[in-house]
Amino acid sequence: MKSIFLTIVATGAWLMVNAQQKLPVYLDINKPIEERVENALSAMTTEEKVSLCYAQSKFSSKGVPRLGIPEVWTDDGPHGIREEVLWDEWGGANWTNDSCTAFPALTCLSASFNPKLSLLYGKSIGEEARYRNKTVLLGPGINIYRTPLNGRNFEYLGEDPFLSSRMVVPYIQGVQSIGVAACVKHFALNNQEEWRGHINVDLSDRALYEIYLPAFKAAVQEGKAWSIMGSYNQFRGEHCCHNDLLLNKILKNDWKFDGVVISDWGGVHSTDQAVNNGLDLEMGTYTDGLTTKGKFPYSEYYLANPFLKGIKEGKYDIALLNDKARRILRLIFRTTMSANRPFGRFVSPEHSEAARKIAQEGIVLLKNDKQFFPVTNGKFKKIAVIGENADRSLVIGGGSSSLKVAYEKSPLDGLIAKYGKDHVVYSLGYASGPSLYGREEPSKLNADSLMDAAIEVAKHAEVVFFIGGLNKNHFQDCEGGDRKSLSLPFGQDKLIDALLKVNKNMAVVLLSGNAVSMPWVDKVPAIIQGWYLGSEAGSALADVISGEVNPSGKLPFSFPKKLEDNGAHFYGKISYPGDSINQYYKEDILVGYRWFDTKKIVPQYAFGYGLSYTSFNLGVLSADKSAYSKDDIIKVRFTVKNTGARYGAEVAQLYVNDPVCSVPRPVKELKAFEKVFLQPGETKVVEMDIKVADLAFYDESKKDWNVEPGDFILQLGNSSNNISQKLKITVK
Amino acid sequence: MKSIFLTIVATGAWLMVNAQQKLPVYLDINKPIEERVENALSAMTTEEKVSLCYAQSKFSSKGVPRLGIPEVWTDDGPHGIREEVLWDEWGGANWTNDSCTAFPALTCLSASFNPKLSLLYGKSIGEEARYRNKTVLLGPGINIYRTPLNGRNFEYLGEDPFLSSRMVVPYIQGVQSIGVAACVKHFALNNQEEWRGHINVDLSDRALYEIYLPAFKAAVQEGKAWSIMGSYNQFRGEHCCHNDLLLNKILKNDWKFDGVVISDWGGVHSTDQAVNNGLDLEMGTYTDGLTTKGKFPYSEYYLANPFLKGIKEGKYDIALLNDKARRILRLIFRTTMSANRPFGRFVSPEHSEAARKIAQEGIVLLKNDKQFFPVTNGKFKKIAVIGENADRSLVIGGGSSSLKVAYEKSPLDGLIAKYGKDHVVYSLGYASGPSLYGREEPSKLNADSLMDAAIEVAKHAEVVFFIGGLNKNHFQDCEGGDRKSLSLPFGQDKLIDALLKVNKNMAVVLLSGNAVSMPWVDKVPAIIQGWYLGSEAGSALADVISGEVNPSGKLPFSFPKKLEDNGAHFYGKISYPGDSINQYYKEDILVGYRWFDTKKIVPQYAFGYGLSYTSFNLGVLSADKSAYSKDDIIKVRFTVKNTGARYGAEVAQLYVNDPVCSVPRPVKELKAFEKVFLQPGETKVVEMDIKVADLAFYDESKKDWNVEPGDFILQLGNSSNNISQKLKITVK
Repeated sequence: MKSIFLTIVATGAWLMVNAQQKLPVYLDINKPIEERVENALSAMTTEEKVSLCYAQSKFSSKGVPRLGIPEVWTDDGPHGIREEVLWDEWGGANWTNDSCTAFPALTCLSASFNPKLSLLYGKSIGEEARYRNKTVLLGPGINIYRTPLNGRNFEYLGEDPFLSSRMVVPYIQGVQSIGVAACVKHFALNNQEEWRGHINVDLSDRALYEIYLPAFKAAVQEGKAWSIMGSYNQFRGEHCCHNDLLLNKILKNDWKFDGVVISDWGGVHSTDQAVNNGLDLEMGTYTDGLTTKGKFPYSEYYLANPFLKGIKEGKYDIALLNDKARRILRLIFRTTMSANRPFGRFVSPEHSEAARKIAQEGIVLLKNDKQFFPVTNGKFKKIAVIGENADRSLVIGGGSSSLKVAYEKSPLDGLIAKYGKDHVVYSLGYASGPSLYGREEPSKLNADSLMDAAIEVAKHAEVVFFIGGLNKNHFQDCEGGDRKSLSLPFGQDKLIDALLKVNKNMAVVLLSGNAVSMPWVDKVPAIIQGWYLGSEAGSALADVISGEVNPSGKLPFSFPKKLEDNGAHFYGKISYPGDSINQYYKEDILVGYRWFDTKKIVPQYAFGYGLSYTSFNLGVLSADKSAYSKDDIIKVRFTVKNTGARYGAEVAQLYVNDPVCSVPRPVKELKAFEKVFLQPGETKVVEMDIKVADLAFYDESKKDWNVEPGDFILQLGNSSNNISQKLKITVK
Repeated sequence: MKSIFLTIVATGAWLMVNAQQKLPVYLDINKPIEERVENALSAMTTEEKVSLCYAQSKFSSKGVPRLGIPEVWTDDGPHGIREEVLWDEWGGANWTNDSCTAFPALTCLSASFNPKLSLLYGKSIGEEARYRNKTVLLGPGINIYRTPLNGRNFEYLGEDPFLSSRMVVPYIQGVQSIGVAACVKHFALNNQEEWRGHINVDLSDRALYEIYLPAFKAAVQEGKAWSIMGSYNQFRGEHCCHNDLLLNKILKNDWKFDGVVISDWGGVHSTDQAVNNGLDLEMGTYTDGLTTKGKFPYSEYYLANPFLKGIKEGKYDIALLNDKARRILRLIFRTTMSANRPFGRFVSPEHSEAARKIAQEGIVLLKNDKQFFPVTNGKFKKIAVIGENADRSLVIGGGSSSLKVAYEKSPLDGLIAKYGKDHVVYSLGYASGPSLYGREEPSKLNADSLMDAAIEVAKHAEVVFFIGGLNKNHFQDCEGGDRKSLSLPFGQDKLIDALLKVNKNMAVVLLSGNAVSMPWVDKVPAIIQGWYLGSEAGSALADVISGEVNPSGKLPFSFPKKLEDNGAHFYGKISYPGDSINQYYKEDILVGYRWFDTKKIVPQYAFGYGLSYTSFNLGVLSADKSAYSKDDIIKVRFTVKNTGARYGAEVAQLYVNDPVCSVPRPVKELKAFEKVFLQPGETKVVEMDIKVADLAFYDESKKDWNVEPGDFILQLGNSSNNISQKLKITVK
């Protein structure tokens, strides 16, 4: 009898509670996130907390179903929303609703030198992620461009820590304004793909803090990134996905990062280190096939049962688990469970317009002898377009950023749309070999016959656009491997020479995410660096080529004349790519233009360089004071005038030099820039603020930033190698 | 030059608009839904409107990605959330996060005669659907139980329109309170599975309105269902998925349904009819394999390109498209895009508790000679459990309601948990043949040897629980086919007889969704009708068997002694199953107990029947008046007393008869019921309200409901065949 009553009474009581519908704090979107986190945490079992910390499928991790806390769905990033894949395989799930808008590669965004476009990019891709119900966008990538061989440079923001910082912050703000978490990657020092899974990177503290960390710091402290991805490589003996110095000390303690540290897929190698050294969410461990076939279930992930066992045995402090769970809950409350989360949108005209706009502003005009460009519509009746990249998908391939797109306008599409079908003749010219989209293998094609056919086409054209570069095949711009040389692949140099012999009225358009050597540079009248431009590639490129849009992009990294001119390659193998076990960044802080300028090596094309169809004049540079204290802000002022006949934009760049310092300083360090849009003849006044604190170097003896009193030289130019004015100021 | 300016200016203008972030009305969750619908509609192209009206995958349909209007994701329903399937195949996608809570089958819910449990059921399953990000739950099913052969009866609410109505309304309210749309099915007259795809049903208007439509009307008008599913069969010459009378006239015009009419999967057969006759969303047309292989793309669905073409050619009025699009948008704004939508939860202890509670209250004690039950713990040392259903998954199979569950406690699990492993011996007894979960095929098993083994076990036990019934194999309780006879399958009758020969202390527990014949009914001392009870089947059954819970379920449909006693089978093939083309419901309004009572046929067990471990007394029935006008409400009052020694519940049932009427009326029609929970010795006063209007019959001559003045007999009982009191009232 007793038990009957108990059952009924207990059930009745529960029904009453249910009827009152008292919302727990964690479900109340009006409560502060930290209260919700603590409330949810207090309702969870140890097992549930652990279950938050590792993957349940290729791209998702568990929520707490019992409590209604949603799962976390991550998605590549950073150029568009990756297609749906099968539960535990890389293979696509063959859905038909996931063909996205491809935005230009991040190198292109950075080349725009326009942080407003970064915000637009972030908002747009955030909307696409949100519409596809993703919690975390795996991007942006902000590893510093150290060597042109790095297969993944195209996903990053270039060689300069300041430029990367200014461009990454609005991207993150844009993504997160839609209620989707950005996941800044790859933290840190994943500056090459060769041996990325194990290479042990070391470098000076100064290079670490001055070159490789600033963009991450800005992403965390200014961008307020809700997650960050650990990199595959090791740093000073620990893998970066569980690296005490990087994650615990620098990221979480010094920078006060309150988000989630997510491992790169398969980047975790130790339960002890994953638990203790700051990892929060383990993804992708041994996933491919092994988990599917049950040989390595998710429950055996380093942060799964081994973690739980360690907690139960007292080996790991429960506080470590609570910290990880808190961070993951915080991310969930910031995204899926947030108040008034927007709904996103997908493949909208606005996104196409954004992609086109970013592509337009990122394209860099490198050479333009005798006003070769613009080639206005009607100027030529017979235009030869030659080169595989004119008609090849450049959104497919490259690794995790490969995209299934709603559409992709190729350069050939764009040029035909601009000039008319009757005026454009296309010839492949070369073939790159096996690719991901079903083109015939090159063995079946005869390189010579391709070249001969192209020569024949070029011979009979009034103008030739050679559209080549790299692509996203392995050992090109592609994750998982580095390039083998600085040269253009697939016999393009030879082809360019051959084409020039029959038609000198030829421009070279390079689509790539890396610098290439240009043995033919003096022989061609015009060169465009066009990047990977996404769905609107053809439109944007044709807009610039035809002159409907005036180019305004600037190189976000230096183009060396030869590989050995690059600092990373100067010191031999130990500097790059390492001895297969260890690597030391011997060029130290002298990365990119810091190296070229300081070592007085002339690059092929310098950082910050890019031409326009109009001309500009930078007026007198003045500062509000001549002497500043360490807490001051230096306010500089100058004019920019459009001295030509076309509407256009110039990027004014302010570099600083500290000529007398207890440590060697680079000749130039970018400290401010501004993209100025001007009508013909128009003049605008530009004001820039530079914190004196930002003139500091990282003082290894003090283990802190240090501004030594003395003179500093402000250098204003429109390129790192074209300084038009200098101004000395003093720091007291 | 001109074009340059235009590009820049246009882009700039767009950026400005974007910067203002003016939220369109349709995205503003604070705006009334109808305003949002109209605003969204006004922003959509004809193509986009059409694209809302048909599937994009097995279970989903498009939103408007460009505008951020989400996709619609449907999911079976009605007993739990179906696993994820591949994009365009019925096959499971092998996700690991979709194992749900199985709730008891709807027959069990209905047997509880407790609308509060219906609300609990709806809320619970709605939460599971929401956690899995479903927009529409494909349920509940409310087709009237016309024949015990119907393979899908287990998914419905029984034979009585009033009981179905009272139970369906809170289920819908519960589901939709979570921001998930219920989809009431199958509208209408899908009362058998035989030839369901084409059989043309006809019946009198009176039977249509009095028997087959009331639960749908209640679902729409009281439950406010946001969607409804058309059935496969035809009605008066048109398929029900595009039936002018059912959808346009009755549902949308008469009942003012403002939700979405969704086709059953593959139930659409004509563009003209689909466009004109009230269908809104076409699902499942030729899906299996054909769409996957591209032979029949979704774009060729009846409501896809053929619809669009017809609009463009002026064949179809755009107003028809706007109406469909409006309804689908309305559903989206009511669900995914609604304000403060809850987050749901999945496989929570509360859901298990709800499943157990519903199962406990739905179990019906049919026979209990000499207080066979309860079998309290400790009463017997050696308990034989015999029968496949004691240890077989009963959540798998049955068609679209088949579930992948987080767990399922079998009856054997429950009994072992209750009585202890040492006291329970299990023997299979019979085997059902090929099933869906890997049991050995019967050809490999010898029926005789199974029986012999069971007899041996029964012989040495103190008590025997035979746990059999039907299962969810084809031709049992399963979609797509009807049962072949009323008999228990797999030789169970023979086995029961054989077991009784060695041990008369045996109870029969039937797990099924249909009535079965019981040739052994007088030989066994105790019978329980246990339904399909879901994840908590074993717990709930053991709770009742052991006496920890006092059974209180009542049969929601009549158990005939033989098939011919059932009204649907009395008139031969034209009445059931039809001549393969046509079918006429000749028993008319005399469905279920209406038939038995009016025709004076004694059923095996009557509608509304069910025993308790305690006893009750229904006190004097009184009404507030003796004469009523047509707009009045009859207020009746009586007491219910628990006259036994246990806590328990009785279902007081009020039936009405109109003895003198211009048309034949059934002897009894249920008009009110109330489940009363009482402590031993406790008495409660029950008050019931019956609208005089609800005493009406459907008058075919007036094509309207009609209450003819005169006497009506109110009949109070605890079963349709156990009326303890009558009271005459007069309608003026």
